Amino acid sequence: MELEVVTVGTELLLGFTVDSNAVEIARALAAVGGRVTRRVTVADDRRSVSDAVEGALRRSRFVVVTGGLGPTSDDLTKPAVAQLFGMPLELDEAYLQELEERFRRYRQRAMPPSNRSQAEVPRGATVLPNGRGTAPGLVLEGLLGTAVLLPGVPGEMRQLLHEHVVPLVRDRAAAVSGRRATIRSRTLRTTGITESGLADLLRPLEASLVEVTLAYLPGWEGVDLRLTVWEAEEQEAERALEQAEDVLRAAIGRRCYGVGEEDLAAVVLRALRGAGRSLAVAESCTGGLVGGRLTAIPGSSEVFVGGVIAYSNAAKIGNLGVPGGLLAAEGAVSEAVARAMAEGAASRFGSDAALAVTGVAGPAGGTPDKPVGTVWLAAAVGSRLQALQLRIPGARAEVRHRSCQAALDLLRELLDSPGGTPPMPAR
Amino acid sequence: MELEVVTVGTELLLGFTVDSNAVEIARALAAVGGRVTRRVTVADDRRSVSDAVEGALRRSRFVVVTGGLGPTSDDLTKPAVAQLFGMPLELDEAYLQELEERFRRYRQRAMPPSNRSQAEVPRGATVLPNGRGTAPGLVLEGLLGTAVLLPGVPGEMRQLLHEHVVPLVRDRAAAVSGRRATIRSRTLRTTGITESGLADLLRPLEASLVEVTLAYLPGWEGVDLRLTVWEAEEQEAERALEQAEDVLRAAIGRRCYGVGEEDLAAVVLRALRGAGRSLAVAESCTGGLVGGRLTAIPGSSEVFVGGVIAYSNAAKIGNLGVPGGLLAAEGAVSEAVARAMAEGAASRFGSDAALAVTGVAGPAGGTPDKPVGTVWLAAAVGSRLQALQLRIPGARAEVRHRSCQAALDLLRELLDSPGGTPPMPAR
Repeated sequence: MELEVVTVGTELLLGFTVDSNAVEIARALAAVGGRVTRRVTVADDRRSVSDAVEGALRRSRFVVVTGGLGPTSDDLTKPAVAQLFGMPLELDEAYLQELEERFRRYRQRAMPPSNRSQAEVPRGATVLPNGRGTAPGLVLEGLLGTAVLLPGVPGEMRQLLHEHVVPLVRDRAAAVSGRRATIRSRTLRTTGITESGLADLLRPLEASLVEVTLAYLPGWEGVDLRLTVWEAEEQEAERALEQAEDVLRAAIGRRCYGVGEEDLAAVVLRALRGAGRSLAVAESCTGGLVGGRLTAIPGSSEVFVGGVIAYSNAAKIGNLGVPGGLLAAEGAVSEAVARAMAEGAASRFGSDAALAVTGVAGPAGGTPDKPVGTVWLAAAVGSRLQALQLRIPGARAEVRHRSCQAALDLLRELLDSPGGTPPMPAR
Repeated sequence: MELEVVTVGTELLLGFTVDSNAVEIARALAAVGGRVTRRVTVADDRRSVSDAVEGALRRSRFVVVTGGLGPTSDDLTKPAVAQLFGMPLELDEAYLQELEERFRRYRQRAMPPSNRSQAEVPRGATVLPNGRGTAPGLVLEGLLGTAVLLPGVPGEMRQLLHEHVVPLVRDRAAAVSGRRATIRSRTLRTTGITESGLADLLRPLEASLVEVTLAYLPGWEGVDLRLTVWEAEEQEAERALEQAEDVLRAAIGRRCYGVGEEDLAAVVLRALRGAGRSLAVAESCTGGLVGGRLTAIPGSSEVFVGGVIAYSNAAKIGNLGVPGGLLAAEGAVSEAVARAMAEGAASRFGSDAALAVTGVAGPAGGTPDKPVGTVWLAAAVGSRLQALQLRIPGARAEVRHRSCQAALDLLRELLDSPGGTPPMPAR
């Protein structure tokens, strides 16, 4: 089933606001077989809205419109589309009473007159109650096709989309195709390999993945690989994705750390929990980002005890026990200091595992020997300790975020491979 | 001057990729007087591209198209638009040689035959050389109007946009309006006040801001207030924004902490630097986010020395010196513990100022007395210490990020108001 999306809002056109609603709608409807074939964004202007909706209906007979349903004079979507369908606006007395009651109860004041227009409904339209705001969703059916109007506030839009529009589109799509077809995707997350490296690795396999297409999505955390099945029944699509995942994972090996939206921090915490280990961190150039990533995961307190942000050399000495002589001799960005930071964190927090990061994030602080982007990592698990040097191209934020990801990955590697690494020196 | 934007890409329609190009184009062209009045996204399909470009030219006579210029068979923008303008594609021998040379020099291999089509140019079109990729930009002029074709890869698009399209639109806009008009914006950043609170405060002033419109943009860090002047010469626009900023800042008072994209962390670091103070942090529920925010700012090492992520109670006792009896009696989320954490951070890192956060971020850990979202903050500057309790609605990520912002704001407040607060208890 094909459909179009019209988003209404001058702010969107100006590039001040990113159109997250369009993304949410496309994904949610694709999962039930509704394929967005065109998306239009127009200004808060009655004529523009009317033209865009009419064009969308002419091509696709089904349109989802967001925005322009509020009480202010900017909000013109409802009258524009109602006129297109030849449905006069009528006051819905029951909805008006509900609105007035909500203002009394939750806002403890009388409803402003400007909200009265929100109780006006095109004659014959279906009202979708909005639990989070005052503008209801509307479904208009007529000779032109079907128009679904949703408010532009993301939280309100999302609720109405999932409660009402997704089921509607699922039924229509099933009626069109005679079966419950779907567009299904799955994402494999990789880190520590470049996009072209991954593509070279997988090129020989692509021909064998007949039903599944691959998309490479590089970012600071690594390259995500999206697998998509374009039109199949749900079970069939899942089976194809399952098979493709097995084939691809076997080829990618340990550079693949997870599926979907799973964060590497969650993978590391799970591995630590499984091994019965606790974790502490020592961060210099990342300044708390590693701790922030770990503690973003609910339940991280079972494993993560804390850490030291040792930004100054004095903090490295005083709060992690890094010897001052070592700092003077090797410099703060060195293998020896990274190792001493990891040992200090484990010792001072009484943890079984530790992670340390020290580097030159820039823009200042680089030298010919240690240019901006030079980072030393150290990971410790029990008596084993592993260090790694990185040279990261890019600016401050990129150096910091890539360091954070690489540090988590180093710990994952150490947890995955028991033994074989040099023992941690005695403290 | 009005124009439209067409973005080409099936991935965009599926909601897999956010359309950052459209945002970049709209902002860059607005600054030189080009107003995007409509934006359309279509699939990688020749007919769809042709229809969308034709419609845009019919309405606006100027269209910027991105995407669909690569060497693969998906990329159909160039032949579709060339046909619309009645311009046959011709091989540009000079560009072909350049392409072949680039493959030899940079990629050390012969150019694949699939790239040959990129040297084909619509007869009479202007070629915009692409320094970062193989697909050049193109400008087609004809009876229908002007079409600018840009590659979809964001880095390549951005370079061609700023080098070639911005000057072109600036000249056209000046020719249309008889002067160099511009759309100019400025953002005032506020925190600690709700969107409706801010709107109520500013409503009496809106009538006096004749040339400037206001948009309220709420987020976890606070409410940004965007001021926009829609059509004026550059100097006139700047003057109007300057005046409006003065009037609004006077009304908002200290809840306004900055302009543009300035982060509150940068404001706090500047105030500390001005006061000759150094800073340490003690973070429980934020787990490193405050440190991460501070160290994102280049030069933060002049002020920020480090801190402790004290996620477990043992870490609060062992690494910050919070008395175990206090934790047992008051609980980890309490005013007394927040104060002790701030004092411990200042003492252990030898800093003049400190910031502490302890709270229940959820989803677990809430109690009837201290539900999820209960957070205690403490800020210390010299001998003065200020504590504050928050009750933040929302899920884990929101609680953590709002806590972080509120903590920075508490320190800003303490730095702004010397004296008048209770002295810090003796250590």
